[in-house]
Amino acid sequence: MKFESKYSVTVNRIKSNIIRELLKTATAEGIISFGGGIPDPETFPVEKLSKIANDVIMNEYKVALQYGSTEGDPELIKQYIRLLKKYEDIHCLNEENIMITTGSQQALFILGTVFLDEDSYCAVSKPIYLGAGSAFNQRNPNYISIPLEKDGMNLDILESELKKLEKEGKIDKFKFVYTVSNFHNPAGITLSLEKRKKLIELAEKYDFIIIEDDPYGALRFEGEKLPSIFKLNEGKRVILLNTFSKVLSPGLRIGVIIANEELIRKMVLAKQGMDLCSSTLTQRIAARFMEKHDLFEEIQPTIKLYKEKKDKFMEALDKYLGDIEDIEWIHPEGGLFSWIILPEGFDTMEMFEIAKEKKIIYIPGETFYVEEPERNTMRVSFCLPSFEELEEGTKRLRETIEEYAKKKGINLKIK
Amino acid sequence: MKFESKYSVTVNRIKSNIIRELLKTATAEGIISFGGGIPDPETFPVEKLSKIANDVIMNEYKVALQYGSTEGDPELIKQYIRLLKKYEDIHCLNEENIMITTGSQQALFILGTVFLDEDSYCAVSKPIYLGAGSAFNQRNPNYISIPLEKDGMNLDILESELKKLEKEGKIDKFKFVYTVSNFHNPAGITLSLEKRKKLIELAEKYDFIIIEDDPYGALRFEGEKLPSIFKLNEGKRVILLNTFSKVLSPGLRIGVIIANEELIRKMVLAKQGMDLCSSTLTQRIAARFMEKHDLFEEIQPTIKLYKEKKDKFMEALDKYLGDIEDIEWIHPEGGLFSWIILPEGFDTMEMFEIAKEKKIIYIPGETFYVEEPERNTMRVSFCLPSFEELEEGTKRLRETIEEYAKKKGINLKIK
Repeated sequence: MKFESKYSVTVNRIKSNIIRELLKTATAEGIISFGGGIPDPETFPVEKLSKIANDVIMNEYKVALQYGSTEGDPELIKQYIRLLKKYEDIHCLNEENIMITTGSQQALFILGTVFLDEDSYCAVSKPIYLGAGSAFNQRNPNYISIPLEKDGMNLDILESELKKLEKEGKIDKFKFVYTVSNFHNPAGITLSLEKRKKLIELAEKYDFIIIEDDPYGALRFEGEKLPSIFKLNEGKRVILLNTFSKVLSPGLRIGVIIANEELIRKMVLAKQGMDLCSSTLTQRIAARFMEKHDLFEEIQPTIKLYKEKKDKFMEALDKYLGDIEDIEWIHPEGGLFSWIILPEGFDTMEMFEIAKEKKIIYIPGETFYVEEPERNTMRVSFCLPSFEELEEGTKRLRETIEEYAKKKGINLKIK
Repeated sequence: MKFESKYSVTVNRIKSNIIRELLKTATAEGIISFGGGIPDPETFPVEKLSKIANDVIMNEYKVALQYGSTEGDPELIKQYIRLLKKYEDIHCLNEENIMITTGSQQALFILGTVFLDEDSYCAVSKPIYLGAGSAFNQRNPNYISIPLEKDGMNLDILESELKKLEKEGKIDKFKFVYTVSNFHNPAGITLSLEKRKKLIELAEKYDFIIIEDDPYGALRFEGEKLPSIFKLNEGKRVILLNTFSKVLSPGLRIGVIIANEELIRKMVLAKQGMDLCSSTLTQRIAARFMEKHDLFEEIQPTIKLYKEKKDKFMEALDKYLGDIEDIEWIHPEGGLFSWIILPEGFDTMEMFEIAKEKKIIYIPGETFYVEEPERNTMRVSFCLPSFEELEEGTKRLRETIEEYAKKKGINLKIK
């Protein structure tokens, strides 16, 4: 049978995940990878989790092996409210403000479904988190891409775009601004306190929702912790997304949506048709883990390790790339990523072939755009390579850049 | 903030799950429920699962707690291919023919996304499994509802509808027939071998896909096992859906799609934006369970119990409803459900209030229609009530029917 004519317009629009394809072809021996955005499995609290899993199945099987409510495990929701009180100073929540999802990815997909039609507008950062792009793309909305500065989205550009929409009579089709507030993926950038407040002002002025995606907030290793946009706005028009993937384990597939209860009810309706409920087993395991252990205390050693790796990586970047003119990179205060912007003329996707020969992997920046990409950028993660690999990998990156410049006739300016 | 104007057309179309609302209001002491479509938690292999969960986390944490591939855990896929060979006599599969989903519900949602646009047509049974309705509804397609007979869909009506579409030049917008082949939810009916073959003929003649949803096939307690439509067609234009929810545990949230590899690739693209991957932990637990134990051997005691309960229930229906003219019910050969069709004039949703007073719960049939419902029907599950409750509950059902008839002035004809 020929299936081509049977596919929907939506599915024909979905492109293959480039990261996935790149990483597939890049598994040779001796390769140093800055590609991963995944936690080091050696940081998982394996013994504690195995004991809890065993107990949960033995003693709570009536809940943990059965269907659950679409909203999520009440015990997990209770624990999460407690955590948000303790660590985020958020006190206004009850169980109707929380929904558990199958990872953050499902949260993004649900938000796309709840808010976006083909004639809708939403503003996203440029570059954007790839998973948000693929979740929203299924609704085929109009994007307004806002460039990132070192302290987050350029809000002057956002406002001028909003004014334009207002003039064109389309402002009622503008639904939300999507932002990764802490240690942005891919760019490593954190939205400043000033800009958080300004963003809320704009949201009130132009009546839109803010989606604050914060998978990495707990992974701050230096600098001052900032209040969430959700906290600053007391949750009035902000939807906060959290996940257990970076602080406990991605394999549990648990994301958390924190929002106004009317919004949560709509999201529950949307999720019902998608998967009925997320795994009751992994939810109950997470709930009992949080009850017995302090989630954030547990990850302190991990954060310390990430900081040391970040410092080492920044040092290596200075050493091996510091003398090149017109090259920049982000100094992240937490999370997993830095972002390198090479001089004009570089195309990091094209350069990837040379990188593979040199046995290093990074993620070409063009992956992270919903519109015209900036091709001279790359995402680099410092969490999985060893200290030696961070040094050696950065050295190889310098060689890769030089070889590509030579091949393309780009005049690499040295300071 | 007023959120009303921010919602998408799609989400505004989603109706609340009526079953959920009904069951919420019906939790009084002493109630006998024919409502549930869920397995008895006492049938879960608790000790085996807890041991395996413990071992998987201790020894395989690098996979079981990490992100996994969108296609699903390769170990689980391997085990599932083995199972299909052994129990379904399906030998044509390799790992590219299988995708693991977050329960069967996600499989249905993905299929809706892959095939349906607003101008698409699909044929479904009348009544239809509620979850399929809510998955497909998010795409807002045109439904062709085909009445069920005792041996499955009325294929003459299906063919005449297909001819009509052909005449109107719309046949290329017809995407698939969706059918629950064994022990239909809600109707308890099984598609006969003759009709399975006829359906494949029609699919070839009119060039459509068959979605064969088979969550209950392993729960046959009498009659002859039939080959799946997938097997009969060697998977050429059939997509087979299975789930672990009825044979191991719903809490794991594991569904399985078996299909042509080109279709699987499209489904993987769609799933990526929805949740990246299903829980790697629950997938690996299921894989190791299947490796160590025979999934279908394990559920033999459950099936024996279900058969005894079904027999008891059929006996009670004969005893308490057998003398009423124009009342019918289905004798299922497996699965969880029977379906009762009351005389004309009955409205089981309206009658539900009386049922609640009598302390019994059933699911009003009108829940299971994507178009105009038949209001004199109800779904009754015999798996969760005890033998005494099956007797007593059916007695109360008779009282409920009598009281409703009296109240509405319906002349209940007694044989």
